[in-house]
Amino acid sequence: MRILSGIQPSGALHLGNYLGMMRPAIELQEQGDAYYFIADLHALTTVQDAAAMRANSRDVALDFLACGLDPKRAVFYRQSDVPEVTELAWLLSVITPMSLLEKCHSYKDKTAKGIAASHGLFAYPVLMAADILIVDANVVPVGRDQKQHVEVTRDLAIKFNLKFGEVFVVPETRIRDEVAVVPGTDGQKMSKSYGNTLEIFLDEETLKKKVMGIVSDSQPLEAPKQGLEENAAWRILKLVAPPSEFAEMDARLRAGGTGWGDLKKKVFGCLWEMFAPARKRRAEFAADLGGVERLLAEGAVKARTVARRTLDRARNAAGLNPLAEGRRPLTP
Amino acid sequence: MRILSGIQPSGALHLGNYLGMMRPAIELQEQGDAYYFIADLHALTTVQDAAAMRANSRDVALDFLACGLDPKRAVFYRQSDVPEVTELAWLLSVITPMSLLEKCHSYKDKTAKGIAASHGLFAYPVLMAADILIVDANVVPVGRDQKQHVEVTRDLAIKFNLKFGEVFVVPETRIRDEVAVVPGTDGQKMSKSYGNTLEIFLDEETLKKKVMGIVSDSQPLEAPKQGLEENAAWRILKLVAPPSEFAEMDARLRAGGTGWGDLKKKVFGCLWEMFAPARKRRAEFAADLGGVERLLAEGAVKARTVARRTLDRARNAAGLNPLAEGRRPLTP
Repeated sequence: MRILSGIQPSGALHLGNYLGMMRPAIELQEQGDAYYFIADLHALTTVQDAAAMRANSRDVALDFLACGLDPKRAVFYRQSDVPEVTELAWLLSVITPMSLLEKCHSYKDKTAKGIAASHGLFAYPVLMAADILIVDANVVPVGRDQKQHVEVTRDLAIKFNLKFGEVFVVPETRIRDEVAVVPGTDGQKMSKSYGNTLEIFLDEETLKKKVMGIVSDSQPLEAPKQGLEENAAWRILKLVAPPSEFAEMDARLRAGGTGWGDLKKKVFGCLWEMFAPARKRRAEFAADLGGVERLLAEGAVKARTVARRTLDRARNAAGLNPLAEGRRPLTP
Repeated sequence: MRILSGIQPSGALHLGNYLGMMRPAIELQEQGDAYYFIADLHALTTVQDAAAMRANSRDVALDFLACGLDPKRAVFYRQSDVPEVTELAWLLSVITPMSLLEKCHSYKDKTAKGIAASHGLFAYPVLMAADILIVDANVVPVGRDQKQHVEVTRDLAIKFNLKFGEVFVVPETRIRDEVAVVPGTDGQKMSKSYGNTLEIFLDEETLKKKVMGIVSDSQPLEAPKQGLEENAAWRILKLVAPPSEFAEMDARLRAGGTGWGDLKKKVFGCLWEMFAPARKRRAEFAADLGGVERLLAEGAVKARTVARRTLDRARNAAGLNPLAEGRRPLTP
């Protein structure tokens, strides 16, 4: 069973990303043949600055490796290092009804948020279909917001197979189990667009400052605390503390004499400790960016080996390679 | 000066194609560094049958070579053998406003004619821009119907250069001089969609039959002929006969005693003779399809050498290749 996960390099990894996407994705390497890619071609629809793209792309590679992606076990590559993806996207384009893309929510949602209405943004689901189909993925775990795109992929795979012959594996959608919503520092859902994030690899001082800035109400220190389920710091602690430590802090708060400052210090301590091993690994990888690049290059070779086979099937089925079956020249 | 011409493999070459596009295109190899490509990825928007695609693609290669394209002098390749084109198309997509594509006539025209409204058809101008920009073409001679697409290309090149740095050569449009409209067998403009074509490489009997079927009026054989400028066979003869032979036939018709049958026999004779050398070359190439494939493979290597350089400039400018400048792995 081949499982594919992609992530856009669009900024520093925060606790919401980590618990909602990165951790469940990395756990999949235990369950099957896991492929992970850095979706830099997708990110180009919003990140149109070379320095930012380079930094984001490097950061997300470090994040994945720091958080436990094992490149010996999984295939880890950068989307733009597998050019077969864009070739396949064109082949899929010619059987993609415009009406199918016009129905996709994400284009409308993103342009409504002020992102430029570019053709790349509109064509995004076709490129995503190519990402999935090119590696013969069986399962694509996604958040609810991406469900429609995987359905587009399934439609295109089935249509192409009917028209040109059995070329593609038709993938299954798997909706990722929602973690309890991760609250941000203002109590809303943690999200970059709300400016309420806790980036897990921040330096100690900055992270502590952000944690101490989590909103709380004005119950005095000595009061037995009420309404804890509404309190952002308490909710975050529940997600990051070992259960026994969480239970202990919860009891102290309810007893009175323990204030929000104490709670937030505990949140910071747990966060800091939770990511200590990842932080250490991240620093090691960051000190050897050449090595990271080699890992990605090796991943790209593995991904391209599969991708070339899929693309050749699709090209032959469509009657490209007209005079001779098989491969076109790969040089230079 | 680099000059780019592309042709879609969409059916047998007829006299209208030859005089209007193929001959002027091939003459360009005398004027500069000429690149010719078989636009099979574009054709895929309408030809969705593997056997037809293979046959059309082979035929157009034979047509080009038969009509005098010199692969030692020009670069001749199949679009789908240069995958850098589709990569570049994606990079251009992210800066292509949807409104720019929505303004293009050809999508509306083609869907109005009943061609399926696919995303490939809609995205066609972006792929065409990539075709042009990837080889650093300075000049793109096109018919009037393609003028808007070259303008889209210029817009995208200028926009990309402004946003990401000087990456692309901004090409010039050159509107191909209109030959006198080539009439079809029914007197309308010769066009596959009217079913009135004279395919230049038809076998002798079939071509003769088609020529003898050219419409004419009912003036009797002995009459001095009137209104010759309206007569389809006369107009075709003017395009295919040596001037002295045309003048002689014209004089005989005006004198009377020469009928439409005589005129059409002359048309057939001139047509058959005009393409005799090309027919011979075509048969030689057709007997060595492996050799044709080698020529195209060599052309693809030359085109890819230029294409890789352009694509690398574009990728670096956009911040792909994040950890190291330069090339991604090309294996397998």
